[in-house]
Amino acid sequence: MGNIPNIPDIVIGRLPIYLRALSHMIEEGKEYTSSHEMGERLGISSAQIRKDLSHFGEFGKQGTGYNVGYLFEQIRQILQVDQQWPMAVVGVGDLGRALAHYKGFVSRGFQVACLFDNNPALIGEDVAGLKVMSIEQMKDEVRRQKVKVAMIAVPASAAQTVANQLVEAGVRAILNYAPITLAVPPGVHVQYIDPVAHLQHMTYYLKP
Amino acid sequence: MGNIPNIPDIVIGRLPIYLRALSHMIEEGKEYTSSHEMGERLGISSAQIRKDLSHFGEFGKQGTGYNVGYLFEQIRQILQVDQQWPMAVVGVGDLGRALAHYKGFVSRGFQVACLFDNNPALIGEDVAGLKVMSIEQMKDEVRRQKVKVAMIAVPASAAQTVANQLVEAGVRAILNYAPITLAVPPGVHVQYIDPVAHLQHMTYYLKP
Repeated sequence: MGNIPNIPDIVIGRLPIYLRALSHMIEEGKEYTSSHEMGERLGISSAQIRKDLSHFGEFGKQGTGYNVGYLFEQIRQILQVDQQWPMAVVGVGDLGRALAHYKGFVSRGFQVACLFDNNPALIGEDVAGLKVMSIEQMKDEVRRQKVKVAMIAVPASAAQTVANQLVEAGVRAILNYAPITLAVPPGVHVQYIDPVAHLQHMTYYLKP
Repeated sequence: MGNIPNIPDIVIGRLPIYLRALSHMIEEGKEYTSSHEMGERLGISSAQIRKDLSHFGEFGKQGTGYNVGYLFEQIRQILQVDQQWPMAVVGVGDLGRALAHYKGFVSRGFQVACLFDNNPALIGEDVAGLKVMSIEQMKDEVRRQKVKVAMIAVPASAAQTVANQLVEAGVRAILNYAPITLAVPPGVHVQYIDPVAHLQHMTYYLKP
């Protein structure tokens, strides 16, 4: 799977949210759910959920709804997270450290495999069981570990250079925490995490 | 401003991205730009940018384009970030610490004003110049400082309870880092930051 053509990217973007809800249902011991129940939990219309899932096949049955475990496994396969992706973290400041220590990656298909920084004071330090390596070692190490996924947690001024080096070493998916838009070649995917953009989105609606 | 009716939320969500690009242009000393140039930087079509901005007025001139400083100020006003919003951070683990230390808030309209945790070992500790307070003190302190914006960085199991207490104390915008969908009353805004959801979105497209 993962190669079905012409599925809108916005649909793909909702699948991880469905997967997260299903994993909570599994923890709760729930065996069956419905698009209605998922919609209630997620604040998404049930019609939208049915339509999104219909791109990938027939997962539900009239009357009984979706089998939680089955749908969970199917979406894991679609998103290719029924495997473990090794990840590089570049930038071992406060944020990079938080990412290195974050417990939520492994159960969802990812594992921090290497850490890089350009600060000599940090290189060789043990962070979350990994030795921080220098930026000079990055390309070789990323290639050696066949890392395809990286998180950039360096200042905005350094982010594009780091991204270029990662892409050269074979990285194809970048989660960028630096507040700057990256230029990458076709076939390389970038997603952004900018908390301020989310905050500013919400203050639009607040009465002063 | 900020009360123009019927503007799609997805348009509002793009304004912070435009604001970020404009602030980089100001740093570069650029005086004028165009929807074309902004689109190139952001990977958004120039037509989309013109359409988005046209909801709020006439900012550009045929021929000369947009005055960078003027458009920047206008969008700041629209998003109501031409003021400083005090923020609460709940949960002072690795992530909460990274947020408390993050230098990027102040220039963009936000300031971490108080930190809360339920771990007695952390209460009273100085983090980024603020004393960590207990969850029991949260409602009073949030009311006292008139905090309307909060970031939740607690485990998923505690996030809903924390959100309820924040809303009771007057918080109207929550940036939730816990990987769980929150239920909040009408008039309260929630945005989510879940790095794994972004990663899973990208692995869909990767060849295994």
